[in-house]
Amino acid sequence: MTALKLLISCPDQKGIVYELTKFILENDGNIIDSQQHSMDDKFFMRLEVDSSNFKIDYSSLEDKFKPLADRFDMDFKFSLKKKNMAMLVSKHPHCLNDILLKHKYGVIDVDIPVIISNHPEAEEIASLYGIEFHHCPIIDKDKVAQEAKILEILQPLDIDFIVMARYMQILSEDFINQYSCNIINVHHSFLPSFKGANPYHQAYEKGVKIIGATAHYATADLDMGPIIAQDVTTVNYKDSANDYVSKGRDIEELVFSRAIKAHNEDKIIVFDNKTIVFH
Amino acid sequence: MTALKLLISCPDQKGIVYELTKFILENDGNIIDSQQHSMDDKFFMRLEVDSSNFKIDYSSLEDKFKPLADRFDMDFKFSLKKKNMAMLVSKHPHCLNDILLKHKYGVIDVDIPVIISNHPEAEEIASLYGIEFHHCPIIDKDKVAQEAKILEILQPLDIDFIVMARYMQILSEDFINQYSCNIINVHHSFLPSFKGANPYHQAYEKGVKIIGATAHYATADLDMGPIIAQDVTTVNYKDSANDYVSKGRDIEELVFSRAIKAHNEDKIIVFDNKTIVFH
Amino acid sequence: MTALKLLISCPDQKGIVYELTKFILENDGNIIDSQQHSMDDKFFMRLEVDSSNFKIDYSSLEDKFKPLADRFDMDFKFSLKKKNMAMLVSKHPHCLNDILLKHKYGVIDVDIPVIISNHPEAEEIASLYGIEFHHCPIIDKDKVAQEAKILEILQPLDIDFIVMARYMQILSEDFINQYSCNIINVHHSFLPSFKGANPYHQAYEKGVKIIGATAHYATADLDMGPIIAQDVTTVNYKDSANDYVSKGRDIEELVFSRAIKAHNEDKIIVFDNKTIVFH
Amino acid sequence: MTALKLLISCPDQKGIVYELTKFILENDGNIIDSQQHSMDDKFFMRLEVDSSNFKIDYSSLEDKFKPLADRFDMDFKFSLKKKNMAMLVSKHPHCLNDILLKHKYGVIDVDIPVIISNHPEAEEIASLYGIEFHHCPIIDKDKVAQEAKILEILQPLDIDFIVMARYMQILSEDFINQYSCNIINVHHSFLPSFKGANPYHQAYEKGVKIIGATAHYATADLDMGPIIAQDVTTVNYKDSANDYVSKGRDIEELVFSRAIKAHNEDKIIVFDNKTIVFH
Repeated sequence: MTALKLLISCPDQKGIVYELTKFILENDGNIIDSQQHSMDDKFFMRLEVDSSNFKIDYSSLEDKFKPLADRFDMDFKFSLKKKNMAMLVSKHPHCLNDILLKHKYGVIDVDIPVIISNHPEAEEIASLYGIEFHHCPIIDKDKVAQEAKILEILQPLDIDFIVMARYMQILSEDFINQYSCNIINVHHSFLPSFKGANPYHQAYEKGVKIIGATAHYATADLDMGPIIAQDVTTVNYKDSANDYVSKGRDIEELVFSRAIKAHNEDKIIVFDNKTIVFH
Repeated sequence: MTALKLLISCPDQKGIVYELTKFILENDGNIIDSQQHSMDDKFFMRLEVDSSNFKIDYSSLEDKFKPLADRFDMDFKFSLKKKNMAMLVSKHPHCLNDILLKHKYGVIDVDIPVIISNHPEAEEIASLYGIEFHHCPIIDKDKVAQEAKILEILQPLDIDFIVMARYMQILSEDFINQYSCNIINVHHSFLPSFKGANPYHQAYEKGVKIIGATAHYATADLDMGPIIAQDVTTVNYKDSANDYVSKGRDIEELVFSRAIKAHNEDKIIVFDNKTIVFH
Repeated sequence: MTALKLLISCPDQKGIVYELTKFILENDGNIIDSQQHSMDDKFFMRLEVDSSNFKIDYSSLEDKFKPLADRFDMDFKFSLKKKNMAMLVSKHPHCLNDILLKHKYGVIDVDIPVIISNHPEAEEIASLYGIEFHHCPIIDKDKVAQEAKILEILQPLDIDFIVMARYMQILSEDFINQYSCNIINVHHSFLPSFKGANPYHQAYEKGVKIIGATAHYATADLDMGPIIAQDVTTVNYKDSANDYVSKGRDIEELVFSRAIKAHNEDKIIVFDNKTIVFH
Repeated sequence: MTALKLLISCPDQKGIVYELTKFILENDGNIIDSQQHSMDDKFFMRLEVDSSNFKIDYSSLEDKFKPLADRFDMDFKFSLKKKNMAMLVSKHPHCLNDILLKHKYGVIDVDIPVIISNHPEAEEIASLYGIEFHHCPIIDKDKVAQEAKILEILQPLDIDFIVMARYMQILSEDFINQYSCNIINVHHSFLPSFKGANPYHQAYEKGVKIIGATAHYATADLDMGPIIAQDVTTVNYKDSANDYVSKGRDIEELVFSRAIKAHNEDKIIVFDNKTIVFH
């Protein structure tokens, strides 16, 4: 089965679902999953279609759909083929490691053409999973040059989205804009609490009883992008700040992989600096 | 806004969503929420429709929908008006108490015409919330007579569904059949573990580290009906079996109220002794 | 069995536990539970002693213990008798309601001589549980007069601690100082996120995927006192801000009752604007 | 700092803690953490002692402690040095992979002299982390010969405990008895539900709303040994049995690593086929 995914948002009006399903039926698609919700006069929908016998070629799909989209003033995104995901990582490999194993298990159905790091440590894990690795250190504090180097690597690879697997650098606004809403970061706190550096130590100082992690789209505004996934775990008085770090890693892995899976399966609509994550 | 809810299950085929949405559009309904999923060649859907301007009167809706339902061999259920929920309770009032407060807060939008108990204790709480209370004790172990008395109370009240708020009696198959898939029980264990009597003590003896509670539809097979909601909490070595009971009550309240809310909002399809609970 | 509780904090040194246990043994106490932890050169301990045959009368216990306490420079607190807890509430009775039922069930082993509210709504629930209720409205915005009235009610009752069961007023620094570290508040957010007014609406605007509640000691610095208990629940894109409010109530009840239970059982040491909560 | 750990269980009597702490004080140890609890006339305790200046040599510690232990009829276990942990694994490397990374991060402070598998797949991961790997296949269904081979590998390595990182074979009673209460298994269900084969598929058939995993000591009675750690995650109607498997892996990793960490840090007392897991 070939599954075509369609994400739509537009002003709410009568007849949208009817016209959408008519379009799909007339082209011999079969809807296998759909979720739609209207709120604040906005309409949001995700459709998953068995397109094995679809009459329209994927390359001309957007054109054919355009009249309908225009009529309802839709933002829409079709998705059919496997995506290309690039991974950025620094010294801490746990999120990278978790994603690579989930990828191997088939849980995250994506292609990973490249892993890039500002440190050499992750090369061994990349190599274990047979993935191309590039070491792009920041030389003489020249982050502009380093980002240029990264982009040079990414450009020929037809990258659909980038994930920051505990990549401890702040990407420039220029870089982010080139992959708008397609860069996923994992921050090691329950945002909006404890933005910025050393969130577990901030949490320890504050004396919270639960710590968390947050996966979100990277935006120019540090740790302020649309939140995709969050989870938490308990801490107690015997836990040191370092214990928070250890316990937190498990949560970082959980939210990071959920966010990547949701993005990869086209389950996310960004709206009003928030996300709708369909089930 | 008047919200018409529609639950459908049928064999999966092309064009179902199209025909459904056509039916709704032609009658001037606006879909505000829909969820649909196909699996194992079966099609499941929930629709919520703004029916403020709906052309078809609710009383004739089923008739008008019948041809479409027949064409696709659908099981379907329309729902528009507020439901009548009867509550059964024994000596432990916590689930009753929680539901009555949630009802007062407007979280569970139902009418509660009656509370019935085999013990007198719950009368005060019923009275606090202004709800009719009947004490139906089991006299001389004659449960048949007691159930007949309960049914006599229920029948004139046009009861849509019954909830067993820790009602510690096993209902007869006859009784259950009169409200098939419309009786919700809460069992104080994480089913299928620890069926039957004293589940917290069973859990204590087993040495589990997490205890739970389960809301499910009552069937003739004790604690084996379709599960609607489950949740858990942790226990540790200092907790006695009585502590399990105390901690468990909070979880019973949570799963019971979630199950009632889902049922009341027509979010549940029973299928294959399991439930599909739409979000 | 009579259980004597002892909480201790002091600079860490060799021999503390030995001297403590010697003191208890020599006076015919039997330790039934103890937890001790040293960190950052500080020593923290909780002891629970079967004092059925204790040789020292409770009234002279502090005097007899003083030499030992002085030797190790201890902060300490003995506790034997049931505590008196006053409850403050406003219009939303869910936390009050939950505590009163847990109290009735024997889960929270405390005396509740009085419930005070700035609104009349809670009187019925107070009455159901047979607890004295006082309506202390704020008249002409004169909060000073209102607090004076509350203190006048509390003073003859030998109140050990006060709990703010969603009491929507900010207590003055003067008031708080009279019950220092003995006033427990529940805030309807996962602090330190969303301090102040309308935290669920703040959470909704931010687009978090998990909401929470926090029980903490009230201090003059709003929502900044030592955190005692926190818990969370998930929200999704279909939940309105009002749904956050509804879901949040359950979490408020959970953290509030856990905090009260821990405080009532002398399991909390406040240290460095944080709490150590023994198991 | 050198941390000496002591686990004790014995009939409850007055004076035990006093005598224990006297013993430690007289030998210049400083207690940095202790937890003690009495229930059902039994006394349980864990002590962690800064033994940097301890007067007694570790090798003679048991002899010196014996008179005290005899007096109170104690079961006791001292622990000072880093333990040797052997890992058994089959085809699914996720638990192995997680533990090796946690080991590298220093979260699990143990030595891992060997990884043994009935399949060759795990060799690459073992090699990445620089750990000796043995492939011990079951040849001609001769499990006795295979276990003999495994024991032959283990014996010279002074193995303290063995962990079954999703080792899909049932160990013989003979094998288990040689490492009594020192073999940790992870079962992919929330025990006691869904013992034996394919627990996720059993869970799917049953229609539970939460799935879990359980780490426990292996005993001759399959999946019935003392439970150490459990955790859960939610599933919904869209999840296939294979999705249960995927989601479950994360939970298996969590409970397995927690159980190993607790065992390795001497925080577990087995009692009455249950465990006391100190915090």
